[in-house]
Amino acid sequence: MPSYEFLNQQIKDAFKNLDLPASPAELYNPVAYTMDLGGKRLRPFLLLAGCDLFGGNVEDAIHPAIGIELFHNFTLLHDDLMDQAPLRRGKETVYKKWNPNIAILAGDAMFALANRHMAKTRNEAIPLLIDLFNQTAMEVCEGQQFDMNFETRNDVSLDEYMEMIRLKTAVLIAASLKCGAIIAGARSSVCDQIYNFGIELGLAFQLMDDLLDVYGSEEKFGKISGGDIIAGKKTFLYLKAMEKAADKANDFQSLYSSTTLDAETKINRVKEYFREFEIESITRAAINHSWEKALVSIHSLSLSDQQTRPLLSYCASLMNRDY
Amino acid sequence: MPSYEFLNQQIKDAFKNLDLPASPAELYNPVAYTMDLGGKRLRPFLLLAGCDLFGGNVEDAIHPAIGIELFHNFTLLHDDLMDQAPLRRGKETVYKKWNPNIAILAGDAMFALANRHMAKTRNEAIPLLIDLFNQTAMEVCEGQQFDMNFETRNDVSLDEYMEMIRLKTAVLIAASLKCGAIIAGARSSVCDQIYNFGIELGLAFQLMDDLLDVYGSEEKFGKISGGDIIAGKKTFLYLKAMEKAADKANDFQSLYSSTTLDAETKINRVKEYFREFEIESITRAAINHSWEKALVSIHSLSLSDQQTRPLLSYCASLMNRDY
Repeated sequence: MPSYEFLNQQIKDAFKNLDLPASPAELYNPVAYTMDLGGKRLRPFLLLAGCDLFGGNVEDAIHPAIGIELFHNFTLLHDDLMDQAPLRRGKETVYKKWNPNIAILAGDAMFALANRHMAKTRNEAIPLLIDLFNQTAMEVCEGQQFDMNFETRNDVSLDEYMEMIRLKTAVLIAASLKCGAIIAGARSSVCDQIYNFGIELGLAFQLMDDLLDVYGSEEKFGKISGGDIIAGKKTFLYLKAMEKAADKANDFQSLYSSTTLDAETKINRVKEYFREFEIESITRAAINHSWEKALVSIHSLSLSDQQTRPLLSYCASLMNRDY
Repeated sequence: MPSYEFLNQQIKDAFKNLDLPASPAELYNPVAYTMDLGGKRLRPFLLLAGCDLFGGNVEDAIHPAIGIELFHNFTLLHDDLMDQAPLRRGKETVYKKWNPNIAILAGDAMFALANRHMAKTRNEAIPLLIDLFNQTAMEVCEGQQFDMNFETRNDVSLDEYMEMIRLKTAVLIAASLKCGAIIAGARSSVCDQIYNFGIELGLAFQLMDDLLDVYGSEEKFGKISGGDIIAGKKTFLYLKAMEKAADKANDFQSLYSSTTLDAETKINRVKEYFREFEIESITRAAINHSWEKALVSIHSLSLSDQQTRPLLSYCASLMNRDY
């Protein structure tokens, strides 16, 4: 497998030559702005890696890799409008910098462009690719809808939460890898196994995200620690604590949903509950569980350690662990 | 060519069996509601007719026909939100009946579903089809952006207007026909000619729409006569009148943009200007010009009158004319 650095350079070069239409500027400037905000480019990397892992030509996967990142950024653009989030990666979101209509329309154009890039590869791969890509897109919408539903519900279960993050986050991680495998011409059972690997990987990523919001350091992850607690967001940590709170559930819930407490006090009190219910170690165990299941999926494929090591060590590094 | 009735029955049956996912209901109920609003199903008809015209199997075109109508309705759904339009076909628009976030997300899911249907046909056709479909989608977004830009501009030229309606309306009419031709396996030059036919047809339709808003009878077209005048919308009729108004341009413009006059007075005064500048006959001439160009395009193909007659008489009937 080519090195992580090599694949990432391919992705960087591709985004430099994105070649967006120039007119109307009101439509395409926000698209360029969004793509310039950067990010880890995790999904394009997984798509290229998935292609390479099964002996495909990475060249064939470049456009679909751009497509998957365009799609991901389109969902962020529309989500930021729906969530009324003023900032993304430290910069103004599109609906704030321009206006809501521009955010809607620029997002729509990005999704169309994403499909065009997805269909620039080996002709034989395109039918499966387009179906998987757009099925995944529908599921991501479903995940966002469940997430919005959860905001006004007080009876969200952990199972429902896991299903929501599967849809909102994991399926796109999984589809990135599977798209790569499809481009490489891998057998359908192989494609399904790498998809399963991606689902567990995506769940682990999201649970790690929930954990780091509370226990990660601000400098390292670029997010305000405790942002989810301040917002009263129903995360894995919150839902697990509710499950364990028993007769303290009402007190904990009213603390967590408080909008009057100052941030530091709220965070510290919530963290006391988390400590009492051992939420940090329970969450780490859930992350480990998903990661182990991911490893089982990838090890079921007839690939050598040498073949899988670069992908696995990259994924492990994203979760702050050795592999 | 199968009769118009036969093709329309195929389309009706297909929409009856749309088989949308059930959950989350908040996401898919608005999609079902939108598709149930009905409409002429013009684009699916043109797609099936385009396929049949070049000897394709209409069965292969059913799913793409659903796809093109899903796409069209998705653009209406997002446009209604952007334009803050409370009604569509006499019923509440999605953002009014539910809320803006639901309208954004349901639209996104519809676009994904549209792409899935577009890719359910002969494998060999899919690469061209997906590229054309999504290129068209981008152009429709561009058209909507220009349309929104025009609202706050006082220097819109007729050329700019024609380019806007080409993008917002004509390219999707043209793409519907060309998709059908691609599915039939028609040669690329043939696909381009039927596309050109569709562009001129789409322009004629839109100009007819502009004309009927002022001169069509309310009962027959289900729209309030003069709605564009009341809203001060920059239509072909308005822009042509501005071109001819010379030293009366300022007076006419301030009348047309007035929001204080009562509707009847405003409509009657604007219509007086239109009479003075012979706007109705000029617009009819422009429609005829596009229709004649459309006929040149379709007659350049080696098709018999018998083959083209059903399509042409249907198109002519939509423009209230004989063929």
